[in-house]
This record gives sequence, structure tokens and C-alpha cells, in this order.
Amino acid sequence: MLVSSLCRSYALCFGSLRHSPAAVLRRGHFGASFSAIRPTGRKLRSPSLGGLRAAAEGLKIASGRQVGARCMSGSTGSMSAVVPVVDKNGEVELLPAVEDRYEGVIVEVTAPMDPGAFVSSLRASLLVWRQQKKKGVWIKLPIQHSNLVHPTVQEGFWYHHAEPGYIMLVYWIPSTEHTLPINASHRVGAGGLVMNDKKEVLVVQEKSGMLRGKAIWKLPTGVVDQGEDIIAGAVREVKEETGIDAEFVEVLAFRQSHKSFFDKSDLFFVCLLRPISFDIKIQESEIEAAQWMPLEEFAAQPSVHKHELLKYIADIASAKFERSYTGFSPVRISSIFSNRQACLYVNSKDLNQTPSSGSQAPSGWCLYSGICSGRTSRI
Amino acid sequence: MLVSSLCRSYALCFGSLRHSPAAVLRRGHFGASFSAIRPTGRKLRSPSLGGLRAAAEGLKIASGRQVGARCMSGSTGSMSAVVPVVDKNGEVELLPAVEDRYEGVIVEVTAPMDPGAFVSSLRASLLVWRQQKKKGVWIKLPIQHSNLVHPTVQEGFWYHHAEPGYIMLVYWIPSTEHTLPINASHRVGAGGLVMNDKKEVLVVQEKSGMLRGKAIWKLPTGVVDQGEDIIAGAVREVKEETGIDAEFVEVLAFRQSHKSFFDKSDLFFVCLLRPISFDIKIQESEIEAAQWMPLEEFAAQPSVHKHELLKYIADIASAKFERSYTGFSPVRISSIFSNRQACLYVNSKDLNQTPSSGSQAPSGWCLYSGICSGRTSRI
Repeated sequence: MLVSSLCRSYALCFGSLRHSPAAVLRRGHFGASFSAIRPTGRKLRSPSLGGLRAAAEGLKIASGRQVGARCMSGSTGSMSAVVPVVDKNGEVELLPAVEDRYEGVIVEVTAPMDPGAFVSSLRASLLVWRQQKKKGVWIKLPIQHSNLVHPTVQEGFWYHHAEPGYIMLVYWIPSTEHTLPINASHRVGAGGLVMNDKKEVLVVQEKSGMLRGKAIWKLPTGVVDQGEDIIAGAVREVKEETGIDAEFVEVLAFRQSHKSFFDKSDLFFVCLLRPISFDIKIQESEIEAAQWMPLEEFAAQPSVHKHELLKYIADIASAKFERSYTGFSPVRISSIFSNRQACLYVNSKDLNQTPSSGSQAPSGWCLYSGICSGRTSRI
Repeated sequence: MLVSSLCRSYALCFGSLRHSPAAVLRRGHFGASFSAIRPTGRKLRSPSLGGLRAAAEGLKIASGRQVGARCMSGSTGSMSAVVPVVDKNGEVELLPAVEDRYEGVIVEVTAPMDPGAFVSSLRASLLVWRQQKKKGVWIKLPIQHSNLVHPTVQEGFWYHHAEPGYIMLVYWIPSTEHTLPINASHRVGAGGLVMNDKKEVLVVQEKSGMLRGKAIWKLPTGVVDQGEDIIAGAVREVKEETGIDAEFVEVLAFRQSHKSFFDKSDLFFVCLLRPISFDIKIQESEIEAAQWMPLEEFAAQPSVHKHELLKYIADIASAKFERSYTGFSPVRISSIFSNRQACLYVNSKDLNQTPSSGSQAPSGWCLYSGICSGRTSRI
């Protein structure tokens, strides 16, 4: 099958990701690379705008003509500025599209279009793409062209994802089960465990939320922005809420939970930060109070005792201070398959350690791993 | 400000997440809890359907009347089955809504509606919600009601997110900057490093993708499903591709990268798995070949030498076999704030270790951490 968008990423390390047949939407095909550059648009001559789909084989296609900017670019102004896609000669402009790397095509509507004309062009384009053995068709509609959403759905497209300013619709031409990839499934958050060398942690009380008015001290936490490194997110949140500058040290633990919002999941990273400034200046709009608090005092709060994650964090912080806990440190890595850099988090202490003997574990490594020795909590 | 959806999750551990003022869309308000149960729908008497918004103060609202199932539930059949929302007495049905925990309201359209009638109801409803000092308004439109997308956008709503079967639109009533939360920003993948006690790893060659036909052996990898634990995703992908049953042991490392698809990011977890069966049965549709391969042979592939992530994985696997590398083990945790369970990944070996001395680090713990000693790669 085709590779997915994640494949394109993971291919950097593993060739390509494989996909379970059980979950159609997380599978293979990925057509939304706007870096693809081959336009497929042509002008299609048709005596009638109706029944184009059924008349596929009979259509005469003016080869080699590319669709100009006439109908799909230019002004993004009012909806009244409709540009016709059927010219005086009865020709239908095909939608300008770029090919992706996965035998698909991508259309981005950038100017107002009359829904009827859009549908005519879409039908004609689908005929051509079908003849060309294309697979996935992606149509990106900016929100100002929301009048085209319903017509697109009526042509058999469905929603792939939406962001505030646009919606992406998809269609699968082959008669096979589609292999389009899933949309993003997780949100990412980070909590900053900022600990100084007096074993004090930086804690806040918030002006809103479930713990408002309950006098419970918590770590600064926040949502990692789209496109933001976990490292940067943790440091930023601490700075915003408390005014404290800090350096990222390690990911001490992370939590995955589900159904956090709609049907999505979240990943929350508990990040150890080393302070490099110490004077607190709270974020007036959101923070009621902030202070450096002895770790023992933080851990002694009833809320920490009652809640497993908080208790783990307190235990880990204590272990870290006693130098018996190693988290995952960040390393910048690059790929030979693309220009993209990424951040890898590893146990750098263990990784940089000289192997104890260099010999193989005599009766199998797994007998010595935590999961076999019973030291690890089984789930 | 208001708490976010992540707050609702992270509140389980930290009270609530805080949000950067810099990024509106990842901030605070979260209104999409369909578990909220207070319907706010009423019937609004109006002599005229026009100018409802402008006539806000003059409207007479029939109090205490709840909107029945007449206009928003029932058949989800053809679009022709429009149910009128203006009755014989000139009353406008308000949209049935439930309140969320964040002073917002949620509308889910479950039956076909005429766009004009929908807009009338929406305008009337917005008047009422404004009077009620509501904040975020969420409208969930199943794809079969895509005819309502454009009218909703024209009323000032924008897209929050979309899944194949529906689109969620949002609106912010107060004159303040909105604090609605961002949509999911990451996809999650997992690779299974399945290693037996002969220091052999389970590797595959794929039938498609960037490495097709290149005779490069890679680990089984895949996309973690929405709502699926990383653990389960890794085990499932290995089973699907190779037929090997395996037990999850640890997360050995993880990678965050950006712009992997559209503008989204991805997180990829390298998971150590212990095999509990050994006879390979490949997934014919996607896998060209699979085998147990000596780790040294895997690491000796030119592709591994060239690519930093692959090289790290080989090094970590080697260190793990020599028992000098500890990853993050999973622990199931629960919350006192909700009934939800989650999975926390920690360095359980270090956490369960008895502290060496119990004394404070004499000159500050940070001097002993990897980042200060120079053992950790700085980024």
C-alpha cells in the first residue's frame, strides 16, 4: 500500500510506517504535501456540463494546457466576485491541482467561486484524475469559501480535518479501501518541575480552574503549541506564569490519557528545569500566587497524597535530588532523508556509560529487565 | 481566565493548565463536554424573524420551555425531510443546547434542517445566550448536514476541528479575546524494538514506502490509533506485520518532530518489546520480508550509520542488552478528580532504588545532573 504522512516522517528513520488494516483512517496514503509542484490542471472541452462523470471515456481533453490563475487565485475578497469557470466556448476549467508523492492530487481554492461552476470543474477534474489513475484527492477550502463545503460533500468528499481558517476535504478515487492517514490525535502539554539547589520547587496557585480558591500549590503547566518543542513549551510556560528563567534538563516522566477532549488523547510531559533566575513575577491575569516551596511541603499537601500522578512527581523529584533518578535528555538529531531536524529524548546517562562487561547476558537479557524481575509495576 | 480542555485533564494532576497569552487558540475555554446535561433550549416568541439580533432587549422569551425533539432530533434521512423550526404561532425554536463546565453551550445538530430556519434559530439562540452571559458556543454538524456549514460561518462562527463524520464550529460571545482551546496538534507513532535473548532483533522490509526495494531492514512501526495506548499500539503493529506476540517492556526513547503533515507535529516512541512467540508470519499485503537479525548486523547497515535516529536506536539496543540502559516503564494511574485512568511512564528502576545516602547534594543537585557534567548532549 501507499505510505502515510507519518511514513514520510518515519521513513526518515525506518523506511516507512506500516499500518494496521483494522483502522482505515490511520493508514497509508498521504496526499497533502503542498510542496509537490506538478500541476495537473487542464481545460476540458465539454458540450454539456451534465453527466460528465458518466461520460468519462468520451471526453476530449485538450492536452498540455495548464489552468491559469483565473479561477483559483487572485482576490480573496467578497463572495460576489465570482470568477466563471465555464468560458464562452463551453469549456470547463479543470481545477488547478498539484500532485503529491502518493499518487494523489491537491487542490487549494484561493479565490471565490460559484458553487455550480465549482462542481462542474470538480466533476470534470475527477474524470481526468480517474483516467490518470490518481488515488487521493485533497481539497483545501479556506473559511471564506465555506459556500463550497456542501457542494464538495455532495460530490462524495468527506472531512479530513479543519483548522480555524480552513477545512480539508478528501476523496478516494480507486475502488479499493482508502489508505488516507488520520488527522492529529493528541494534544501535548508540559509541566515544569523547577527545582533549586535548596530542594525547593517553584509552585503556583491559579486564579481559575478546578483548584481555584482551594489553596493548592501546583507546578506551572501549559499546552505545548503546535510546532513547538516540548522543551520550549515547558520553559515558556514557567517564564510566563512566574517570570522565572529556566533551563530544560530532562523529561522525568510522561503520561498518556484518552478522551480528554472530544475523542482525542493527550500526552503530558513532566519536565525538570533548572532555574537561572530566582525572583518571581507572577502573571497577574492567571496566577494568584507563586513561590519557592520546600519539596517536602509540596509533597505533604493532601491533594498530592490523594492523586497518583502528583505523588509520583513528588517521589521522582525527591529521587532526582538524591541523584538516583535519570530522565530522558534531549538530543538534536537530523535525518539523511530530509532537511528536517528533530529532538530525540534518551537516557543519556545510561547511554554514555561504558558497558559493564561487554558480554552477553548469560541467560537472556530479559531476565534482568525490570519487567521480569518484578521491579516494574505491571499494567 | 477560563480553564481549557487540557485543564480538565491536567487539572487531575495540577489543578489546571495555564495558557500563554501569546497563543489564543491554545488557551483556556473549553466548551465541548457533551457530558454536560443542562439543556438551555427555549421557545422564543417573535413577531418577526428578521433583525432578531438587533432586537435583543425587546424579545419576549417564553421561560421554562424546553425545546423538544421536534427540530433537532429524529430522522437523519434525506435533506428533503426538513422539519420547520417556526411554528404556526410565529415562535422561533431556540436551538437545543447543553451547558458545558466553562460557561459555554454546545449544540449538536442531529436532524436535517432548512438553512434559513436554522439561521433564525441560531440568531435567536445567540441572543438568549448573550443575555445569559455565555461565552463559547460550539456547534457540531454531522457531515450529512453540511448544508448548514456555510450559514453558520456567515453568522460569525469559525472552524474548530473536523473528523470524517462531522465538523465542529465555534463562536465567542464576549467582547474579550477568546480562550477556546486548540485542536489536537500531534500524531503519535510507535516502533517495536523486539529483541530476543540471543541479541537478535525483529526486522522487516516493506513493500512500499521510501525504502521499498532498497533491501533495508527496519523495525516494525506504525501509527498509534486515536484513543490507543502507546503500549498497545506497539504490540499491535509488531503482531500485524510479523505475527510475533510480544510484551511491552519500556519506552527506550522518543522523538518529537514538526511539520510532518500539514502543520502538525509527531511524537514517535521507540518501544522495547520482549517476544513471547518466535515464528514469523508476515503481513502479505505490506511486508516483503521479516526475520530475526543479529543486532550487530542490523546496526552495520549503511542506512543506520547515516541516520542519527537509527544509530541511536542501535546504540540503545546494545546498551539495553548489556543491562546499562533504563527506559521508561508504564504504570497505570488513576485520578481522584475523575474516573479516568491514564498511563504514566517513569524510570521505575531509579524510582524504586533506595536513595544512596538520603542527604542533600552538598553544593546543589544540578551540579550532579547530566546537563551540568557535560555528559548530556546539549541542544
